[in-house]
Amino acid sequence: MTFKKKDLLDMESLSAKEIALILDTAESLKEVSRRAIKKVPTLRGKTVVHFFYEASTRTRISFEIAAKRLSADTVSLSKSASSIVKGETLADTAKNLQAMNPDAIIVRHSAAGAPHMLARLVESSVINAGDGMHAHPTQALLDMMTIREKKGRLQGLNVAIIGDIAHSRVARSNTVGLTKMGARVTLAGPATMIPQGVEVLGAPVTHNIQEAIQEADVIIMLRIQKERQQAFLFSSEREYAQCYGLGLEAMARAKPDVLIMHPGPLNRGVEIAPEVADGPYSVILDQVTNGVAVRMAVLLLLLGGSR
Amino acid sequence: MTFKKKDLLDMESLSAKEIALILDTAESLKEVSRRAIKKVPTLRGKTVVHFFYEASTRTRISFEIAAKRLSADTVSLSKSASSIVKGETLADTAKNLQAMNPDAIIVRHSAAGAPHMLARLVESSVINAGDGMHAHPTQALLDMMTIREKKGRLQGLNVAIIGDIAHSRVARSNTVGLTKMGARVTLAGPATMIPQGVEVLGAPVTHNIQEAIQEADVIIMLRIQKERQQAFLFSSEREYAQCYGLGLEAMARAKPDVLIMHPGPLNRGVEIAPEVADGPYSVILDQVTNGVAVRMAVLLLLLGGSR
Amino acid sequence: MTFKKKDLLDMESLSAKEIALILDTAESLKEVSRRAIKKVPTLRGKTVVHFFYEASTRTRISFEIAAKRLSADTVSLSKSASSIVKGETLADTAKNLQAMNPDAIIVRHSAAGAPHMLARLVESSVINAGDGMHAHPTQALLDMMTIREKKGRLQGLNVAIIGDIAHSRVARSNTVGLTKMGARVTLAGPATMIPQGVEVLGAPVTHNIQEAIQEADVIIMLRIQKERQQAFLFSSEREYAQCYGLGLEAMARAKPDVLIMHPGPLNRGVEIAPEVADGPYSVILDQVTNGVAVRMAVLLLLLGGSR
Repeated sequence: MTFKKKDLLDMESLSAKEIALILDTAESLKEVSRRAIKKVPTLRGKTVVHFFYEASTRTRISFEIAAKRLSADTVSLSKSASSIVKGETLADTAKNLQAMNPDAIIVRHSAAGAPHMLARLVESSVINAGDGMHAHPTQALLDMMTIREKKGRLQGLNVAIIGDIAHSRVARSNTVGLTKMGARVTLAGPATMIPQGVEVLGAPVTHNIQEAIQEADVIIMLRIQKERQQAFLFSSEREYAQCYGLGLEAMARAKPDVLIMHPGPLNRGVEIAPEVADGPYSVILDQVTNGVAVRMAVLLLLLGGSR
Repeated sequence: MTFKKKDLLDMESLSAKEIALILDTAESLKEVSRRAIKKVPTLRGKTVVHFFYEASTRTRISFEIAAKRLSADTVSLSKSASSIVKGETLADTAKNLQAMNPDAIIVRHSAAGAPHMLARLVESSVINAGDGMHAHPTQALLDMMTIREKKGRLQGLNVAIIGDIAHSRVARSNTVGLTKMGARVTLAGPATMIPQGVEVLGAPVTHNIQEAIQEADVIIMLRIQKERQQAFLFSSEREYAQCYGLGLEAMARAKPDVLIMHPGPLNRGVEIAPEVADGPYSVILDQVTNGVAVRMAVLLLLLGGSR
Repeated sequence: MTFKKKDLLDMESLSAKEIALILDTAESLKEVSRRAIKKVPTLRGKTVVHFFYEASTRTRISFEIAAKRLSADTVSLSKSASSIVKGETLADTAKNLQAMNPDAIIVRHSAAGAPHMLARLVESSVINAGDGMHAHPTQALLDMMTIREKKGRLQGLNVAIIGDIAHSRVARSNTVGLTKMGARVTLAGPATMIPQGVEVLGAPVTHNIQEAIQEADVIIMLRIQKERQQAFLFSSEREYAQCYGLGLEAMARAKPDVLIMHPGPLNRGVEIAPEVADGPYSVILDQVTNGVAVRMAVLLLLLGGSR
């Protein structure tokens, strides 16, 4: 099977077969990062533009390392250094980039749908590295790779995603992707953070976090964004930690082979206790390692084929 | 003929033969960016420093892609991240860069003449990527490449450059370059934007924009800088668009095979109407594509020879 | 002899033999930067992360050029663009970087000891590019390389380090390194800038700058930081220049073959007169050139061995 898409924009547009192909490819590429010479010539002479409108450590670095380990040339463009400050529209920036004929544009943007618009405007492959509260497909793929690696499968697993569901592109992309692969996703969080209508994602919703934890084979804790506190979605970090954070007490009721995941960066002591983040069930750093492999796979499948 | 200059600082210092050599070289390099493997090993092991004191999307990215497609190593230095914030003089920064033995320094600076000073201080090749209101030679070269590509020649063409002539390094470099190649340049703009003394560029000046448009084989619209409005050079964007902008009405009186150009980024609806920018006569995106080719040619001629 | 350390954190942890090995390696690598093709394939497929929490021109650029001339892949991470702004701890950032399996992390940080903490947390080699007022080992190594190159030896030389000793990581690293190699270091500066307890470095301290200058084979002038003036450590730049700056008058009493050094960036007319900085005894730009060679040597010894 070959991968025939031009872009990677969201999990909705991937079939289960395509997801499996990406995960299989990522698995086989993972060993490149363990070699003494961490580089294969596959994408030599390809140009990859990193176009990040929002600050990011791990996602940008992860994509950049992935591109370089495939021997692609990379060029980086951040909002502050660009003509966007001169009032150019995203569409014009897109068409200008296209005119320089890059092979892929990796974009992070605060506006949901920005990568989709970009993809319609350019012939280059567009990879969504996170758009607003909408989608973050490579995060979902690296989460799924990590689960499959540790559990041997995705089919039939209970995955609890816990926290600020309303504002999370990670929750959305994981719910769609995991459901397609046959996992059962439960969304849990405080009432103020689960908006009405979230049922369209096809996953049951609960405010009973204890129950979600007890039944889960995998727990994905979401990052709490401190600016939400000012919006009265929770009253204090301490209260949030007590009611909705994952601590040792809650872990005592979890399954003995549960996996603990988090997309990072961590708020230690808020949504996750340090003992849990660094504990034996945590695969948080495996997620980061697999992020490089998944991004290599996506770049390879989009750029390295016969298109 | 070989290219014997150390630097590319302005159009004044290039002969017609040298300009033609750059354009011929750019034409032959253009196909590299269309290959599946967009890379030639010509400048392997050369170090190119991008030294941008001013924000820029397309110029920096264009130079960086050009350098990488020639296999040069690139290092990027922006004002904010550099010792300039610690009060180091440009001369000291220049000598420090030189001591690391780069092959080329590509510099954009708000002060006219900064690249010339740099060029005197360093043995590396210096390429002016725009200095104050003085010069932007690679922009002029890519404009000339685009005109020659579309019209088959530069000799004898009528080129109208329209807008804020006073503050435009693009106008200056194009006027000098195009005149050397035998084109007839007309400068047109509102009276507040054409200072006395502009005649030294050797091009006729007019405030009659309609007439300039009617006679032109090529129209280069300049970007209006919104901060000029505060300086009372024009009263409102709407008024500017009506009086001096290029819209469909003005286009109706233009030659049937006119070329519309703009150095970007566009102020849509101010100096150029969207219908014109995206219309059949616009070669604005060809300019961007040719920018990569021209910058590859300049790097190749400066660094790749027997010097 | 092979180099067996994982990290380069400070001069304290290097033996005299290890220092000599780095300097010898740097000397042999120096010619790479003089070649037409300034590149050797030694570190192909190695990933080097530049992690700079503080602004820097020459150190970051120097490390980046060094890595690229050894064919390593480089990824750059600055404070402003990273998750640090989201409140992630340095330890978490470190573990995340580690999970992407870079071969080296080059770190500059305002907190003394940050690179040491990083080194304990990651398997990658950590290179200290300056931490607070603590250490700047590659600066000391390039200074020592420059002295050895010009004087033929380090053993037995009198080296005066003059200026704001209290706040200088350059003074600290040079004192430790030079003393290990058999040089005699004298620390000189105004009383407000030499704190009690500095004797632990093992070098004599004097406020008699004239005497220090007269006896020195090598003078390292330190950069005065203008924000210290506000802290009343000196009353004005002019007064500082008169009392503690190195001008032609002071130079008249120096040895006829003295070397003048400065870590840069220069405050011309404050701690050093322009005539001295640009004069015949100055080896300030040799320091910069040797910086690339020393950093190539450090990268090669840490990453290129059989580890």
